[in-house]
Amino acid sequence: MESLEDTLRGAIRTIPDYPKPGVLFRDITTLLGNARAFRDAIDALVRPHAVGTVDKIAGIEARGFILGGAVAHQLSAGFVPIRKKGKLPHETVRVAYSLEYGLDEMEMHRDGVKPGEKVILVDDLIATGGTAEAAVKLLRQIGADILAACFVIDLPDLGGRRRLEALGVPVRTLIGFEGH
Amino acid sequence: MESLEDTLRGAIRTIPDYPKPGVLFRDITTLLGNARAFRDAIDALVRPHAVGTVDKIAGIEARGFILGGAVAHQLSAGFVPIRKKGKLPHETVRVAYSLEYGLDEMEMHRDGVKPGEKVILVDDLIATGGTAEAAVKLLRQIGADILAACFVIDLPDLGGRRRLEALGVPVRTLIGFEGH
Repeated sequence: MESLEDTLRGAIRTIPDYPKPGVLFRDITTLLGNARAFRDAIDALVRPHAVGTVDKIAGIEARGFILGGAVAHQLSAGFVPIRKKGKLPHETVRVAYSLEYGLDEMEMHRDGVKPGEKVILVDDLIATGGTAEAAVKLLRQIGADILAACFVIDLPDLGGRRRLEALGVPVRTLIGFEGH
Repeated sequence: MESLEDTLRGAIRTIPDYPKPGVLFRDITTLLGNARAFRDAIDALVRPHAVGTVDKIAGIEARGFILGGAVAHQLSAGFVPIRKKGKLPHETVRVAYSLEYGLDEMEMHRDGVKPGEKVILVDDLIATGGTAEAAVKLLRQIGADILAACFVIDLPDLGGRRRLEALGVPVRTLIGFEGH
């Protein structure tokens, strides 16, 4: 029987020189479109958590929404979106983070998580961890208790996992790709 | 016992004068964040379909990703994202659609759905149906068999449902709000 890791690895498409020369882009859309791989990935993200032990899944726009919505439903948790600035209609908290060139901001609704609620952060991939670190800061700003940060893909050479663990956030990933 | 409709209606936040004066914005983030309402909404969207009868869920960026991911997992279907232009890394098909002022484009991967595959389109809300109609055209361009288009919220006065039904697409919504 094929292992989870082989199933997921085989379902991801690698696109050379995207978005710029020298980068191997890991395209998760082929995994999402593969019914078995998608189901297995969600089930593996959910498995360590019992229904009733997680209040909210925080998903990072946009691919984290696809995975996070499914994880939230499986755990009978609520879902809270972390979005690029200017897209949420009610009062927000906001944090700036570094991109390769310059700064950007992300935000979430101030009442999206109540102080003390148990939250799992979900995104498709962790690379340098800049986006995930910003999401952790946002969630803690409003008093969330972050149980874990979960990603399908880890690019371990870029150090994101260590960056989150240094903040005291347990990190779970399903497969890793060396290099970047 | 509270009906599904009351649960969902009570979980949606209405924001007056957003994004501009005179508009009542129906904010679904409070429904997503309410574990019971989110679970009940997904279960109601899934209920008419048996596992194994749907190949792909097509979700419209961005809120359709949250709902669509959960629906795909429940039905053991794949998920295919329909995105704003310029965000997908592989070869795409593209369609233009009208916004209030001017045109925009949305796209999906050309290999995101195979000809003949059975697809359900998912988004959070149908208003005029312009975005959903564009998504239907995209899916049909690559030969998808669209079983249904599903939305949590209908704004019936804006005519979106009739617009999709005129294309031969069955429409399912969970709650309606008069006016807009």
